[in-house]
Amino acid sequence: MKKVITFGEILLRLSTERHLRFSQATNFNATYGGGEFNVAVSLANYGFNAEFVTRLPKNDIGECALQEIRKHNVATTNIQFGGDRLGIYFLETGAGTRGSKVVYDRANSAIAEIEPNSIDWKAVFKDADWFHWSGVTPAISAKAAAVCLEAVKAAHKMGITISSDLNYRSKLWKYGKEPKDIMPELLKYSNVILGDLDTAFFMTGQETQDPDYQDMDSLPELYDLLYKGSPDLSYVATTLRYSVNASHQKIGGILYDGKKIHYAKIREVTPVVDRVGSGDAFMGGLIYGLLQDRIDNQQTIDFAAAACCIKHTITGDFNLATLDEIEQLAGGNSSGKVSR
Amino acid sequence: MKKVITFGEILLRLSTERHLRFSQATNFNATYGGGEFNVAVSLANYGFNAEFVTRLPKNDIGECALQEIRKHNVATTNIQFGGDRLGIYFLETGAGTRGSKVVYDRANSAIAEIEPNSIDWKAVFKDADWFHWSGVTPAISAKAAAVCLEAVKAAHKMGITISSDLNYRSKLWKYGKEPKDIMPELLKYSNVILGDLDTAFFMTGQETQDPDYQDMDSLPELYDLLYKGSPDLSYVATTLRYSVNASHQKIGGILYDGKKIHYAKIREVTPVVDRVGSGDAFMGGLIYGLLQDRIDNQQTIDFAAAACCIKHTITGDFNLATLDEIEQLAGGNSSGKVSR
Amino acid sequence: MKKVITFGEILLRLSTERHLRFSQATNFNATYGGGEFNVAVSLANYGFNAEFVTRLPKNDIGECALQEIRKHNVATTNIQFGGDRLGIYFLETGAGTRGSKVVYDRANSAIAEIEPNSIDWKAVFKDADWFHWSGVTPAISAKAAAVCLEAVKAAHKMGITISSDLNYRSKLWKYGKEPKDIMPELLKYSNVILGDLDTAFFMTGQETQDPDYQDMDSLPELYDLLYKGSPDLSYVATTLRYSVNASHQKIGGILYDGKKIHYAKIREVTPVVDRVGSGDAFMGGLIYGLLQDRIDNQQTIDFAAAACCIKHTITGDFNLATLDEIEQLAGGNSSGKVSR
Amino acid sequence: MKKVITFGEILLRLSTERHLRFSQATNFNATYGGGEFNVAVSLANYGFNAEFVTRLPKNDIGECALQEIRKHNVATTNIQFGGDRLGIYFLETGAGTRGSKVVYDRANSAIAEIEPNSIDWKAVFKDADWFHWSGVTPAISAKAAAVCLEAVKAAHKMGITISSDLNYRSKLWKYGKEPKDIMPELLKYSNVILGDLDTAFFMTGQETQDPDYQDMDSLPELYDLLYKGSPDLSYVATTLRYSVNASHQKIGGILYDGKKIHYAKIREVTPVVDRVGSGDAFMGGLIYGLLQDRIDNQQTIDFAAAACCIKHTITGDFNLATLDEIEQLAGGNSSGKVSR
Amino acid sequence: MKKVITFGEILLRLSTERHLRFSQATNFNATYGGGEFNVAVSLANYGFNAEFVTRLPKNDIGECALQEIRKHNVATTNIQFGGDRLGIYFLETGAGTRGSKVVYDRANSAIAEIEPNSIDWKAVFKDADWFHWSGVTPAISAKAAAVCLEAVKAAHKMGITISSDLNYRSKLWKYGKEPKDIMPELLKYSNVILGDLDTAFFMTGQETQDPDYQDMDSLPELYDLLYKGSPDLSYVATTLRYSVNASHQKIGGILYDGKKIHYAKIREVTPVVDRVGSGDAFMGGLIYGLLQDRIDNQQTIDFAAAACCIKHTITGDFNLATLDEIEQLAGGNSSGKVSR
Amino acid sequence: MKKVITFGEILLRLSTERHLRFSQATNFNATYGGGEFNVAVSLANYGFNAEFVTRLPKNDIGECALQEIRKHNVATTNIQFGGDRLGIYFLETGAGTRGSKVVYDRANSAIAEIEPNSIDWKAVFKDADWFHWSGVTPAISAKAAAVCLEAVKAAHKMGITISSDLNYRSKLWKYGKEPKDIMPELLKYSNVILGDLDTAFFMTGQETQDPDYQDMDSLPELYDLLYKGSPDLSYVATTLRYSVNASHQKIGGILYDGKKIHYAKIREVTPVVDRVGSGDAFMGGLIYGLLQDRIDNQQTIDFAAAACCIKHTITGDFNLATLDEIEQLAGGNSSGKVSR
Repeated sequence: MKKVITFGEILLRLSTERHLRFSQATNFNATYGGGEFNVAVSLANYGFNAEFVTRLPKNDIGECALQEIRKHNVATTNIQFGGDRLGIYFLETGAGTRGSKVVYDRANSAIAEIEPNSIDWKAVFKDADWFHWSGVTPAISAKAAAVCLEAVKAAHKMGITISSDLNYRSKLWKYGKEPKDIMPELLKYSNVILGDLDTAFFMTGQETQDPDYQDMDSLPELYDLLYKGSPDLSYVATTLRYSVNASHQKIGGILYDGKKIHYAKIREVTPVVDRVGSGDAFMGGLIYGLLQDRIDNQQTIDFAAAACCIKHTITGDFNLATLDEIEQLAGGNSSGKVSR
Repeated sequence: MKKVITFGEILLRLSTERHLRFSQATNFNATYGGGEFNVAVSLANYGFNAEFVTRLPKNDIGECALQEIRKHNVATTNIQFGGDRLGIYFLETGAGTRGSKVVYDRANSAIAEIEPNSIDWKAVFKDADWFHWSGVTPAISAKAAAVCLEAVKAAHKMGITISSDLNYRSKLWKYGKEPKDIMPELLKYSNVILGDLDTAFFMTGQETQDPDYQDMDSLPELYDLLYKGSPDLSYVATTLRYSVNASHQKIGGILYDGKKIHYAKIREVTPVVDRVGSGDAFMGGLIYGLLQDRIDNQQTIDFAAAACCIKHTITGDFNLATLDEIEQLAGGNSSGKVSR
Repeated sequence: MKKVITFGEILLRLSTERHLRFSQATNFNATYGGGEFNVAVSLANYGFNAEFVTRLPKNDIGECALQEIRKHNVATTNIQFGGDRLGIYFLETGAGTRGSKVVYDRANSAIAEIEPNSIDWKAVFKDADWFHWSGVTPAISAKAAAVCLEAVKAAHKMGITISSDLNYRSKLWKYGKEPKDIMPELLKYSNVILGDLDTAFFMTGQETQDPDYQDMDSLPELYDLLYKGSPDLSYVATTLRYSVNASHQKIGGILYDGKKIHYAKIREVTPVVDRVGSGDAFMGGLIYGLLQDRIDNQQTIDFAAAACCIKHTITGDFNLATLDEIEQLAGGNSSGKVSR
Repeated sequence: MKKVITFGEILLRLSTERHLRFSQATNFNATYGGGEFNVAVSLANYGFNAEFVTRLPKNDIGECALQEIRKHNVATTNIQFGGDRLGIYFLETGAGTRGSKVVYDRANSAIAEIEPNSIDWKAVFKDADWFHWSGVTPAISAKAAAVCLEAVKAAHKMGITISSDLNYRSKLWKYGKEPKDIMPELLKYSNVILGDLDTAFFMTGQETQDPDYQDMDSLPELYDLLYKGSPDLSYVATTLRYSVNASHQKIGGILYDGKKIHYAKIREVTPVVDRVGSGDAFMGGLIYGLLQDRIDNQQTIDFAAAACCIKHTITGDFNLATLDEIEQLAGGNSSGKVSR
Repeated sequence: MKKVITFGEILLRLSTERHLRFSQATNFNATYGGGEFNVAVSLANYGFNAEFVTRLPKNDIGECALQEIRKHNVATTNIQFGGDRLGIYFLETGAGTRGSKVVYDRANSAIAEIEPNSIDWKAVFKDADWFHWSGVTPAISAKAAAVCLEAVKAAHKMGITISSDLNYRSKLWKYGKEPKDIMPELLKYSNVILGDLDTAFFMTGQETQDPDYQDMDSLPELYDLLYKGSPDLSYVATTLRYSVNASHQKIGGILYDGKKIHYAKIREVTPVVDRVGSGDAFMGGLIYGLLQDRIDNQQTIDFAAAACCIKHTITGDFNLATLDEIEQLAGGNSSGKVSR
Repeated sequence: MKKVITFGEILLRLSTERHLRFSQATNFNATYGGGEFNVAVSLANYGFNAEFVTRLPKNDIGECALQEIRKHNVATTNIQFGGDRLGIYFLETGAGTRGSKVVYDRANSAIAEIEPNSIDWKAVFKDADWFHWSGVTPAISAKAAAVCLEAVKAAHKMGITISSDLNYRSKLWKYGKEPKDIMPELLKYSNVILGDLDTAFFMTGQETQDPDYQDMDSLPELYDLLYKGSPDLSYVATTLRYSVNASHQKIGGILYDGKKIHYAKIREVTPVVDRVGSGDAFMGGLIYGLLQDRIDNQQTIDFAAAACCIKHTITGDFNLATLDEIEQLAGGNSSGKVSR
């Protein structure tokens, strides 16, 4: 069984029910999630040996997060305990013409205050096949960025495949650094990158190009620009999203292997139950495909896009769909019949 | 007031809320339902004297089912008490590209262990005008099949109109018999059959034909095949369903009277609140139309299809729509305006 | 800060959850609302000094309504206390082909029994810029109609702009008078009228014309008919609604300034979370635009229609959308992206 | 099977959850109840043929009440339909030193406007053994009082046993009559009266005596005073209640048969889950005992008091305890062990 | 109407339902509260003109807090907006032998980062009669302590009565100062102090004495020690609490006026619905009594203790009891009868 | 870290909320539990390496149980998958004089149909220090009894300490064997037995003695009788329970070490939130004490009894109390103060 490590933050998510606005809520649904952990859950569901590395406060809320990690069969072996609080985000789920709304309350979280050199990455990566991180972690604090760099360097040195999700969030990056100061060094070791071309150019400090994702011929040239900064890069992937309204999305994807563009066809996604974590579902599907010998690149991008679609029907940050459900959708069956 | 008897199983339905997956649920909504009982509820709502015959365990859960039957104004006069448990089914309600999921836990239920000759069908059918059963009941156990046969024979002997819903469920039929061993004898007494042509051919052991429901000319020939095994058959009806996704169905219907095909036009059904029991809603509408003198065959199939459509907007197994609501929809008003 | 007074009834609204029918409900969500109060909430949200005048019973339920008014930053200075009960309405929220259903239980409410001359309108309107009322209030009782007339006369005398929402409800008007007996005198003082042309002609006792809202050339002539009875009338507006089904509406609007027809383009509104109060949201948007110098008539009708659309995504009677959200939608961005 | 008729009002009860105050509630639990109906439910649970006569409005809320009556196996044969609304009461459930609070909103209910001579009491009482009414009904309106008098006269004429629960509510009796104007004539036909001596003297216009319920010797003399106005009176019973706080009651009872005082011993009742309807539970227990040959007077009062106690542990107006549970408690087993 | 100002923090409270432990919770009830705001709510309920001064973040969660303040009729005129987050506390409600548990997550809240001299206290205290603060605010941060000192100085200078609740929380005071460094200067201006003698000695840096609250003769000497540091001190009060278990408290109180000890008798409080904020309820009762001419010192302490008791029956931080309810309990009626 | 293995059944528990009776429930809270698993959760909470061996069906409900096991940090390494269903029990939580009620629906569960020799007990017990089982497992079916015997024999052979909880349930033992046919052989290998003396004599087929648990002198002689059948027995323990009512228990315990009786003092437990699993909490505390060197026998029984008490305050089958909370209670602090 292949072993995948992900590193990042897990937050308490407090969301309103039934599309209520924050000011109408007298209670919040409490779940736990975060980009890199969401990917780990997907991979554990697909049968991999998944492990999540993070830092959790030693209080009851941190303990709840720990139980959630265990529940999803994600290993907790190398989690560090310390710090004052678990980061929180508040979520108001929109509908139709009203978009969802996130209020972050994640400053000063346990992982934001992680000490460099406090994790023994050599031990963490023992027997591991894959390491995944995203651009959210270096955006949290200088310390988190430093530990993230330790991780990618150690993984690279040990010959572990590294996937990087650009995941740009403008509301983070508040500690005095810009993405272009930090990300190029981190992305240098990537074997797989997930992200928009625009974001990639912005984060790597390159001049922005204007990609037309429908123009198959022009894309390789643009994607090739990313290979310069990441010498070991094998794949670049992009999630294609077109938002009709908050309840209706169109979702597809692109996988580029340095030679060829593979498209996953655009699917209608309506109604949207919860779109948070759908990018992580895409990422989880991508890693699944790339870690499997039996699946080719076209099947990989089809699987990733189908995973992303089906995530929109599931409440919470995780993609709780089964391999079988995703494969059926990837294979073209979107009828949603009752299974009985 | 016309009197209709239905016979079958009522189950405890445990469903997740808000499209949650089973693994996310910390509580289940508890309702009660089952194909033949659902039909009885429809008919009671339409003003008929409806009675449901079943077997219930003498425990608190059986008592809850009994109260639900009473609440809906369905007579309980001939219910038998005994056995160990009420059958259960778990329901996870899907959305969009993710279909709903049913986990059956109905083995060894009270009615599966009903003793042949334990119900006085002659007394049950006294003053009755109509008897309805479905293919789910003989699929449960040899005993249930035997009692079902007693019922149709008694009803037939007493000159009561008999409607049969084929209702094939591949997960049942576990007791060593196949539908073709059991169903032909049961269907022999039918005056009305509801089902797909494919299912009908399969259950009656005929070679499968490939029906094209849009081809009005070819259909009578195929439907006529069913009249051979059921000499008293007057009507065959089929629900037409096209599934765009779990939240979006297209619903129509066909009624064949041995001479002419009557179509109910296809309607868009979106969003789907709950599609379980929509076939029973169709059946209930069909019986309503056929029991009314004032309604012709076209109006009957329009009513049945409208009942099926509106059921998709109602949570639970029953079609709690009123006559007036269904007639408005059948008459072409689908605007769903606020009634105030 | 401009000051707006509205006068009318606030009711306890008891609604079923999750599209349940009344007979399935074991609890009701309890909120508070009413046409004129809903308008006041919109205006308070937009930053105006809004005040609601009504009559509330001196019991716990009246106190709950009072707290709701305060919570939304609407002034309660001139609320009168007395009477026996707060009016109630029960709401069953439909879906798809099944419309929502309202059961009124509002007879004998505190405001229905308000005594003429019991409110010092001169004090109420001190420093006020705008007065809004609707046709629901004179429909409740002769006393409510009398007090409404006192209000419009006082407002007119004090030079305050008066907006009138026709708001015809056939289930009201039970006290022996018809709209045409009461409304012309009330509408006489209007500066702004919101309503369908049909309703306007019916309420003012004019012969009904058959308006074609798509025919820009024919409309001015029809709208001009309303100016005869209301010599100070500046604007007439109409909400355009086309109902695909209970979950899918198409919404636009018209603003006529005595010279020119301004259209707000028709928008798809799906899914509909709650359409109650969407007309009041339109009205609130209209007043907002007309009270602002920086917004022209086209922008005003665009804002009003966008406010109406976004209200459909919000549970409860009020439009809890922010200025910014409505302006974005009015400006053409309906993608409903996650704000994070 | 003995047949018992009760006549009165059934109301929609809207109660706050988890001891919330009204101003904290964002939803209300919706149940249905009313003194005389509550007694009917008790008797149906004990195996009697119970029927409830009332008047219900022809709207969805009235239909909900009707379904609740059916669910509890109480016959609805003679219910009259008409009127505008179902009466409502709001309930805030207290705890400890804070008492529960009721807000009535029951004026102008369907039964308050029942027409005299509109019920065929002779048909109602055919085959009946017992008729029960309470002092709440004549307190509602002159019409309700008139119909109540019709009922007791008819029952008396047909030789049916009549039980009367005094049930004084000072907030009712608003239509210009006092209890002493109405109750003596109604009580004249009683065979069984339940009530405090104080209330009985007040309602029958006698000079108030000061009863000491612990003084067994002085009581017969006082109870005997009631026999003067009710020549057919056989039994008088009183519920003894001592309130430590809202969560802790002490409950006993007295049954006087014209000769002897029978006491049910005082039991500690803590915690109190819901005390509404506990008097009706007592009444139901009393009728049960008096209708049974196998139970003597001491056993009857023990059963009635035990029924009253156990009701305090059950949410809602009805005593949903089984015969077996009450008999166990009446027999002295109050350990509340898990039954498994 | 007397005007009372309170100054402090309002937090989002996230509590588990039904005595669930944190690890069992899938949702949290969301309410808002904080010591000084809780006092303001009590005083608004008693009919005073109450105003709360605080600092709120300009985000949706801050807006929710603002609406809660308004809902309770507490003025918001001088609230300052800014900062990053609203403080949070998580509450697990215990039962019996298991105590409730609080997890604080309030560091870096808006008020912790308030700038000195940013509030115009002279304007705030215009027309005010009373100012209340507590020891929680100077415990938050040096900045909050500084602003608190500005407030008491300004209030003292303007001749406003000042009440101080010692409110010691060992988990706060993390910014490098101890209570004895800060509190004496703040308490110097007090006219009324609420607190334990132990806490008072500790906070004012005096040698701890060992008070025996049952020994009426020894107490004045100890209380008198507090008058030395607070020359304008008129009253010292102490809440007496004895905890049988988490669901059962005994509550009394002491009021010392510099001459005489007034005791409120100890009351049994069981069950405890929610004890958070019961000290603030006591404080609110104390201020009520001292601001009323018609109430003497004994009545004041009786009222304060009764307010504290009844708060234990109410969910949330606020004492939502009415004047009438508290006076009844203070007057000796603790029977908790249903009010109907 | 000591390793403890437990073997038995885990069930889906469906319980009504808020003390509702089954017939009032429209939803059930869904949790998972079972005697031996509950013990494993206690031990995992106390920091041991706990593992649960069972058989789970390969369906969604079995998967939910698996996730619950993982969440609580109990190892799932040797769980067998197969069979048709997870056993279910329905729970109605009583209050006061009304006891809780359990309806079992656990026949034909996955573990009831476990095949003998299908578990490699030698592998299971590798590195284990303790094995725990209870009398519920052999009561389920002959197969479960046979596998249980395999387990105790293997454990005994490998020198692992064995604890046996008698756990007699009269509603089980339906497969044709009585306890005395099966239990003596199973108990033979015990090192620790938990149970009543009565139950022990009944299960081992000895003549019943009448123990007086308050008579310290007579008890050793009775307990010694158990040592005859179990040659390796070191300890016998008994939970002492006295039920005042369903909401009020008195709990103590006895530990006999073959020489001396150690009593845990009787504690008042009120209110009872949930008493299911309190015996398992006792057992977990006992194993904790016996596995610790630092704790003597008196401290062990005090800890076990305190664990049992505190479990009564926690919803669900598990004792989610921490070591620290139990030790505080065992040490005499039952005040239940707020921890903040």
